Amino acid sequence: MIENNATFETAGYSHYAVSHRPQRIDIGAESLGLVWDDGHVSEFHYLWLRDNCPCSDCVSSLTREQLFEICDAPLSIRPLEAQLRGDYLEILWKGDGHRSRFHPGWLRSHCYSDQARAARQWQPAIWDRAAIEASLPRYEYADMMQHDAILLRWLRKLRDSGISLLHNSDTTPGTLQRVAQRISFVRETNFGTLFDVRSKPDANTAAYTTLRLPLHTDLPTRELQPGLQFLHCLENDATGGESILVDGFCIAQYMREQHPDDFDALSSLPMDFYNKDRNSDYRFRGPAIVLDGQGAVSEIRFANFLRGPLDVPPDQVVRHYRAYRTFISLTREARFQFEYRLVPGDLLVFDNRRVLHARRAFDLQQGQRHLQGCYVDRDELLSRIRVLERSL
Amino acid sequence: MIENNATFETAGYSHYAVSHRPQRIDIGAESLGLVWDDGHVSEFHYLWLRDNCPCSDCVSSLTREQLFEICDAPLSIRPLEAQLRGDYLEILWKGDGHRSRFHPGWLRSHCYSDQARAARQWQPAIWDRAAIEASLPRYEYADMMQHDAILLRWLRKLRDSGISLLHNSDTTPGTLQRVAQRISFVRETNFGTLFDVRSKPDANTAAYTTLRLPLHTDLPTRELQPGLQFLHCLENDATGGESILVDGFCIAQYMREQHPDDFDALSSLPMDFYNKDRNSDYRFRGPAIVLDGQGAVSEIRFANFLRGPLDVPPDQVVRHYRAYRTFISLTREARFQFEYRLVPGDLLVFDNRRVLHARRAFDLQQGQRHLQGCYVDRDELLSRIRVLERSL
Repeated sequence: MIENNATFETAGYSHYAVSHRPQRIDIGAESLGLVWDDGHVSEFHYLWLRDNCPCSDCVSSLTREQLFEICDAPLSIRPLEAQLRGDYLEILWKGDGHRSRFHPGWLRSHCYSDQARAARQWQPAIWDRAAIEASLPRYEYADMMQHDAILLRWLRKLRDSGISLLHNSDTTPGTLQRVAQRISFVRETNFGTLFDVRSKPDANTAAYTTLRLPLHTDLPTRELQPGLQFLHCLENDATGGESILVDGFCIAQYMREQHPDDFDALSSLPMDFYNKDRNSDYRFRGPAIVLDGQGAVSEIRFANFLRGPLDVPPDQVVRHYRAYRTFISLTREARFQFEYRLVPGDLLVFDNRRVLHARRAFDLQQGQRHLQGCYVDRDELLSRIRVLERSL
Repeated sequence: MIENNATFETAGYSHYAVSHRPQRIDIGAESLGLVWDDGHVSEFHYLWLRDNCPCSDCVSSLTREQLFEICDAPLSIRPLEAQLRGDYLEILWKGDGHRSRFHPGWLRSHCYSDQARAARQWQPAIWDRAAIEASLPRYEYADMMQHDAILLRWLRKLRDSGISLLHNSDTTPGTLQRVAQRISFVRETNFGTLFDVRSKPDANTAAYTTLRLPLHTDLPTRELQPGLQFLHCLENDATGGESILVDGFCIAQYMREQHPDDFDALSSLPMDFYNKDRNSDYRFRGPAIVLDGQGAVSEIRFANFLRGPLDVPPDQVVRHYRAYRTFISLTREARFQFEYRLVPGDLLVFDNRRVLHARRAFDLQQGQRHLQGCYVDRDELLSRIRVLERSL
């Protein structure tokens, strides 16, 4: 059994389980092949190994940042000796006589074979109305606040399905600040840190009226749309005002299968989003469906009421409007819409870059409606999950 | 002469000069051609015109947000009548009898002919050492704080060249907060809102030691790297510690011309950036050279000391390292490096997503070195420029 040792520890705070043991090394010209006890072979290039040397000369023990610069080693770097010792891969480098030692758990975790890379790919849990009604992630607010294990479970669900509901939260205004601190810090915008969603006479957004809000993502006018959106119900005696949520990834997947040209149009043609106010004038230009480097849908950017004039080549204008109509028509279908009426103490949290949200119009004759909201970015969510996973 | 009228005003806060007058309309099947007095022809599709109707039924006078949804009009929407009246384009729509009226200055500004679209394309002012030594944008701090016209001039220069220096600023700690408020608000990170750059015993980044810092962008570990970086010199009696700045767009342009395969590798293969700390674990995966939808370089993401293990297909590993070495070698060439020693009162501001910065090691035997820093995102810079341009 291998323990992480001090030399290895300098490269990071994570621990790596040894699920498989290395059996043999095959030395090649630019790389070595490491054969594991389950038959899997990892190819590790010498440049890559030298670059990832975790020793305290190469990585600062204080900051965990790399001190060594791979550009200062020759492109043709080769080992003088490479061997397995006590399941560690040990290399003595030709030229400068530097020694590197690699933990087997770390090596296996960072294998970049096609198979290993595919297995590491994150997959969202996509949902329609029926699926989310059957399995909406729900947690008790007090449990989440008290127990890190429940916090971690909640955050992983939120990452994967993009939606969740916390029940029986404290309805004191400002409570969201403490919830956000369980993850990290609040993303500030021109609407402030915490914002109050209620009808206001000087509304600078439809959110602050009693009007119906069609399905949208918040702040598509910013280069980085806020990641998580928190909506905390403090009071809700109004008639109407139900929340409607749609998984934009589900709509995009359906479009890709059933309307491929519309999917291509919305994922390649840029749209312009404008948010014009007295003291700010935010604009962003980008496609409604954002693909990552592998062609997977990573983001939806969508608010009909915040679009600026379309600015694409003339022969793409009608194509864009056709695709846009297909997308909106799908979001309006009941089979994709999850409808929920927030009650005081409910805290709805969703991925604003994926889940479109809407609100029915409401009437204040019967009572008040007061939500508080805030944003926390995806970076913060993922960082928090990684830190919690180190110890749980 | 045309004045903006109340109907038009509801669509936004900007004013549009009438540089050209419309002469004639040619009615087509899906679009009309608007012929201007300089011979230019703008094609406007009926869907586009209906979508952009600025009347107060279609756009809320209160919030400036669109109430009308284009998906509720038929794809085949056509005018019953279209005419020029007093230089306005007026349309009566078939079907619902809605009337739209378009201001000629607004129409010309939003023409989407290939020629008009190309003319609107922003171009950065790229620099090497000689160019920036000859024309570094420099302003007096007091002038910028007092006069909006100078603020606007500074911000435009900063947007275009990605670098600037303010002189003789107040050296009271916290002054940056007031500078940031001239634009908008500070982007918070795990390093706080304002951060103190000086040697600390418990440093969690090399920035907080006396060590040399190689050329890098800050926080490449975040999905959205901070846009503007502010470095405010409060004290500098240390030996060494000179700042070095390199225009990453200039390096990228040179690579594209001289080393096209290296450019392709760095703009298509993702790199992994890791920032591991006791309470955070930020990671981001993306290329070092980021291209926009038109293939222009929009961002550089680069910090040798914050890279995680490369995770690309095995046959791309050596190609990546070769390209990475080309990039770093170029940034180390004197012809690209602008070197400057900050003196108290200097406030260096640069686009962190474009300009790489470095610091020589310093020695505290002779005195102290204390900078304060903060970030403000590109969105905020561009919004502020637009708002200032409305009135200046």
